[in-house]
Amino acid sequence: MEKIVYYISIIEEELKKILTQKEPKELYLPIKYSLELGGKRIRPALLMLSNNLFGGKDSDAINAALAIEVFHNFTLLHDDIMDDAPLRRGYDTVYKKWGSNIAILSGDVMFVHSIQLLAKSDPNKLTEILPLFNTTAVEVCEGQQYDMNFETLQNVSIDDYLKMIELKTAVLLAASLKIGAIIGDTSLENANHIYEFGRNLGVAFQLMDDILDLYGDPEKFGKQVGGDIIANKKTYLLLKAQELAKGDLKKELEFSLSSTALKNDAKVEKVKDLFNQLNIRKLAEDEMNLFYNSAISHLDSIDAPKEKKQVFENFAKSLMNREN
Amino acid sequence: MEKIVYYISIIEEELKKILTQKEPKELYLPIKYSLELGGKRIRPALLMLSNNLFGGKDSDAINAALAIEVFHNFTLLHDDIMDDAPLRRGYDTVYKKWGSNIAILSGDVMFVHSIQLLAKSDPNKLTEILPLFNTTAVEVCEGQQYDMNFETLQNVSIDDYLKMIELKTAVLLAASLKIGAIIGDTSLENANHIYEFGRNLGVAFQLMDDILDLYGDPEKFGKQVGGDIIANKKTYLLLKAQELAKGDLKKELEFSLSSTALKNDAKVEKVKDLFNQLNIRKLAEDEMNLFYNSAISHLDSIDAPKEKKQVFENFAKSLMNREN
Repeated sequence: MEKIVYYISIIEEELKKILTQKEPKELYLPIKYSLELGGKRIRPALLMLSNNLFGGKDSDAINAALAIEVFHNFTLLHDDIMDDAPLRRGYDTVYKKWGSNIAILSGDVMFVHSIQLLAKSDPNKLTEILPLFNTTAVEVCEGQQYDMNFETLQNVSIDDYLKMIELKTAVLLAASLKIGAIIGDTSLENANHIYEFGRNLGVAFQLMDDILDLYGDPEKFGKQVGGDIIANKKTYLLLKAQELAKGDLKKELEFSLSSTALKNDAKVEKVKDLFNQLNIRKLAEDEMNLFYNSAISHLDSIDAPKEKKQVFENFAKSLMNREN
Repeated sequence: MEKIVYYISIIEEELKKILTQKEPKELYLPIKYSLELGGKRIRPALLMLSNNLFGGKDSDAINAALAIEVFHNFTLLHDDIMDDAPLRRGYDTVYKKWGSNIAILSGDVMFVHSIQLLAKSDPNKLTEILPLFNTTAVEVCEGQQYDMNFETLQNVSIDDYLKMIELKTAVLLAASLKIGAIIGDTSLENANHIYEFGRNLGVAFQLMDDILDLYGDPEKFGKQVGGDIIANKKTYLLLKAQELAKGDLKKELEFSLSSTALKNDAKVEKVKDLFNQLNIRKLAEDEMNLFYNSAISHLDSIDAPKEKKQVFENFAKSLMNREN
C-alpha cells in the first residue's frame, strides 16, 4: 500500500498549488473550501499508480490525476444540492454554507478547471483521454439521475440498481485507471483490462457499502446501523428481498417499510429479521464476490510485472476487508 | 446579412441532428427542450462566418459552432435557476418546468456535450481552441457571479459594471469569432483583431440594451419600458447617474429608488426626468459608440478581403440600429 499512500501525498501537495485565491472570492473561496475538505484522493492516486504500472512518468500523469479529483469534487458540490445534504466529511457542504446558487456556479467553474487540467496533458494523449473523460462525465450524471429517479419509482430491478451504481460510482474509478494506462502508453488491451478491474471493483465496493450499512460492526461503522432501512433506501439488500419475498413474508416486508407506527430501531430489527429469513446477506456477498473476482481476473490478465500488480490486488482486498 | 442567415439555418439543421432521445429521459428531454426553444444562434453563426472569412471550410467549423451554442444554452439553464427566472423566450424555463435539480444536472450534461462537440475539431486546432474555450467558460461564470454580487452591493463603479458585462456577455461572442478564425487557419494577429471586434461589440450591445430599456419605442420594444428602473437594476444608466448626481439631485434620485410610495409608472417618469437632467442618455450613447468604434477599428485592421468583411460591419450596424 505504500505506493498509494505516496501518490495520495503527492496529490495533496499538488492540489494545494492550484488553490489560488482569485476574484470574485464568492466563487473561488467555496472551490478552495471543497478541495481542502479532504477526501481519500483514491481516484487520482490510482490514476498515478496505473500510469506507473505501465512505466509512465509521474509528471506526465499528475495533471490528469488532479483533473479527476477536481471533477469528482464538482459532482459532490452539485449532488449535495440535489440531495439537500447538510454535511460532507463532517463539515457543512458548500450548498449548506453558501447556498445553492454559489454551489451551482462554483461547481461549474470546478468542472471547467478539471478540463483545463486535463488539457495540460500531452496533446497526443489528449485525443484519447478527453473523449473518455467526457463519456465518463456524462455517465456519472446519468447515474445521479437514475439514483434520483429510483427514490420515487415503485419497481426498481436488481439490474437497474447495478447499472445505476456502475454509472454513479464505478465508471469514474475505471476511467481514472484507464487514463493512467493511456498516459503510461500501454496497449489498448491492458488499458481495457485495468478499466474493467476498476469498474468491477467499484460495483463490489458499493455493494459492500450496502452490506456494511446493516451488518457492519456498530463500534467500527461510525454511522447509524441500518440507516438505509430507516430511510427506505433502495439498496441491493432491499431490492433483492423485494424480489424474493412471497406471500406473508412479502406482506410483512411491505408493512415494515411503510408503517409509521414502527420506531426506527424496531423497524431495523424487523426488516433485518426478514432479510435473514431470505438469506439476503449471503446473496449480496455472493453478488459482491462475483464483481470482486471479475475485477481480480481482469487484473491478472494485464500484461505487466506481477510484483507491480500486487499493490492493486492489495488495494482491492483492503476495500473488501474494510469495516466502515 | 444573407451569409449569416445561411449559417443560422445550417446551425438549426445540425442542432436537430444531435438532439437524440436518450435515456434517462428525465435528463435528456430538458436538453432537447432547451435547444429547441430557439434563440438567435448568433454566436455559432458568427463562428462559421469568421472561419469562412479566412477561407476555412464550413465542415471544419460546424462542431465548434455547435459546441458554442450548447455551452451558451447550458449557461442559460443554470442562470435561470440562480435568477429564479420563470420564462425564457416566452416559454417556461427548464428550471420552472422541471425544477432546479433537473436544471442543474441537465445543464451539467450540456456542458459535457459542448466539450464533446469541440473535441471533434482537428486535433491540431484543438490544442489552441480548447484552452480559449475553457478560459472563456470560466470568465462567463465569473461574470455571472459579479452580476449576482452587484444585486446586494452598495457601490458598483462604472468600471466594475463594464468588466461584468464584458465577462458575462462579450467574451463568449469574442471567443466564438476567434475560434472560427483559428479553425480558418489565419494569423494570430487576425484572430486577436476579430476577438477584439467581438468583445467591443458585445459590450456596445449590452449598453444598447440598457439604453433601449428606458428609451426604446414602447410599441417596438416588446417589454415594459423602464423595467430596469422598476427593478432597481444597476445598469450603466443608473450607475452613471449615481456617479454624477450631487446635492438635491442625488437626494431625489436615492429617494425615487428607495421609496415604496411611488407607483411603478411614476417611478420610471421621475427617474427618467433625473436622468435627463444629467444627460445620461447621451453619455451612455457616447460610451456605447466608443466600444462600437473600437470594434469597427479592429475589424478594419483584419487582413482579409474588404467585401468579405462587409457582412461583419453590416451585422454590427444592425445590432446598433435595432429597436428591441
